[in-house]
Amino acid sequence: MAKTEFDNQAFRQALGSFTTGVTIITATAPDGTPVGLTANSFNSVSLDPPMVLWSLAKTSLSVDAFNKTEHWNVHVLSQHQQDLSNKFAAKGKDKFKDINLEDGISSAPLIKDCSARFQCRNMVTHDGGDHLIFIGEVLGFDQQPLPPLVFQQGQYAMTARKPWEDVNLSSEPAAPQCSYNEDLLGYLLGRAHFQMLYRMRKVLDQQALEDSHFFALSVMNIQPKQTLEQLNTHLDYTGHSLSEEDIDFLESQALISKIDNDSYQLTDSGRVTSLHHIAQAKAIEEELIEELGAGDVMALKLMLKRLIHKTDPGLPDLWSTQEQQ
Amino acid sequence: MAKTEFDNQAFRQALGSFTTGVTIITATAPDGTPVGLTANSFNSVSLDPPMVLWSLAKTSLSVDAFNKTEHWNVHVLSQHQQDLSNKFAAKGKDKFKDINLEDGISSAPLIKDCSARFQCRNMVTHDGGDHLIFIGEVLGFDQQPLPPLVFQQGQYAMTARKPWEDVNLSSEPAAPQCSYNEDLLGYLLGRAHFQMLYRMRKVLDQQALEDSHFFALSVMNIQPKQTLEQLNTHLDYTGHSLSEEDIDFLESQALISKIDNDSYQLTDSGRVTSLHHIAQAKAIEEELIEELGAGDVMALKLMLKRLIHKTDPGLPDLWSTQEQQ
Repeated sequence: MAKTEFDNQAFRQALGSFTTGVTIITATAPDGTPVGLTANSFNSVSLDPPMVLWSLAKTSLSVDAFNKTEHWNVHVLSQHQQDLSNKFAAKGKDKFKDINLEDGISSAPLIKDCSARFQCRNMVTHDGGDHLIFIGEVLGFDQQPLPPLVFQQGQYAMTARKPWEDVNLSSEPAAPQCSYNEDLLGYLLGRAHFQMLYRMRKVLDQQALEDSHFFALSVMNIQPKQTLEQLNTHLDYTGHSLSEEDIDFLESQALISKIDNDSYQLTDSGRVTSLHHIAQAKAIEEELIEELGAGDVMALKLMLKRLIHKTDPGLPDLWSTQEQQ
Repeated sequence: MAKTEFDNQAFRQALGSFTTGVTIITATAPDGTPVGLTANSFNSVSLDPPMVLWSLAKTSLSVDAFNKTEHWNVHVLSQHQQDLSNKFAAKGKDKFKDINLEDGISSAPLIKDCSARFQCRNMVTHDGGDHLIFIGEVLGFDQQPLPPLVFQQGQYAMTARKPWEDVNLSSEPAAPQCSYNEDLLGYLLGRAHFQMLYRMRKVLDQQALEDSHFFALSVMNIQPKQTLEQLNTHLDYTGHSLSEEDIDFLESQALISKIDNDSYQLTDSGRVTSLHHIAQAKAIEEELIEELGAGDVMALKLMLKRLIHKTDPGLPDLWSTQEQQ
């Protein structure tokens, strides 16, 4: 298995299997110029005394500044700071332009809104091949409950945390012997969707609305003017469709009204009803963010969007502004 | 913001914001005893020469062995090796029992089925407060396409990778001005579910089966003997239900048959039909794993299960063996 000749590209790739957070390390050069760069080579070293380390390519333009400064700050970036990560990973003189800084222990720049920050005093700089290893004592730190930005195999990533207890849907250790199992993606997506909709249904039932009515009102909230045919084009992939009777029902409830021969729009009352649906959907989501974690729900949404992209059968763009004109 | 007094617990927590992979580091003590421990303090140092580092608590039982050995191996663990991570994180003498090892460059134990492995020669051991920093030259490495195990804020985690291009569902940069947006979790879950089901529907249409029929056959595949009432108890949360006419239809298609006054089961033909559905669902899933990445789909499933747990309205356990008896 072991390679004796070194393939640099393959070595980089193998190292990429080790997942890391993303940090920006900052310092102030002796002439007062702020310097900063993106690094994922950060790690903790010691708790007592508190020490951390990171490494810097000897070819980096900032080597001189870091060699001459006594202090540097480590910023563990949050998911919202991906642009900042890209900015500090590139070469550039104006990296600190438009960035709000805070006052810290030393003169090293201190960036806001990070997942965690460590203000350090350099203890030792150690030779590490084509890199220098900076080992520092942590003088101060802080943390915010912001989901951290993650890097793996050359890509940014989000994390879905695994609870310490197993997450099984069956109440029994051994599920029935059959070809289905609770791990089937299609089953999980269906059950998750229907359970979310089930929570909506309490509100819908009070209004005597069926799922298809709810979907139709949602479409008309996004695309104000719809013919029955247009509505059904948007609903087709759900297996739901609206009949003339459904339209009559929604009109009788004063939720929609005819605006010309073929088209319908939400009435004021229909708009209020739809806003209540959205408020309910958002309340369910807020509750889940509270229970599952903001970063975890972000990861779920990202994966759903990636899946939707890959499985899109060519749906008409619900979010297009074209239909509105 | 900076703390002057050090709260060890808070410092640990702040360090936990920096996401890492999980490694097992192994060596052979001078007396031939294999030693190994779980560490997330690994990081790359240099590409040329190839160098990596990790750190070890001075209080570790393995310190002596690592101080006296010339070689150690780093194993970047895969998602499937979480148990191994726990085993090597605990104290114990028989850590290597029942573990298949491979021959490597040195005598240091080499564990199979990792995301990546680095076989190293120790170059320098550096003092790092309450830890020792081991810096080694990489003599050999390999990598397998296995999703890496991740550690963040004291928990194992999975990663959902972010493509370099933005993942937007709308074809236009600015979505219509309305209270809905494509980022609503309920919308994403619904659309993902319906798009998956849409792919199933081609097969279902050929068999003239409606969604509710498909759901009913699936339930009867898992729970062989079902009354109409039992079936509908399992389907209730989906908003679907089966009528007497649906049962008559499925009987007329020879997919189910009556086994006593009230109960139905799949016929041989019904079982084959249901197996085709499962095969189709698994084929769709395999295609998505290919396109999205195995680890990413694992992360999606984990989040769906966590969401299902939190939103379960108290459904009857579809996976129970009780009903079968």
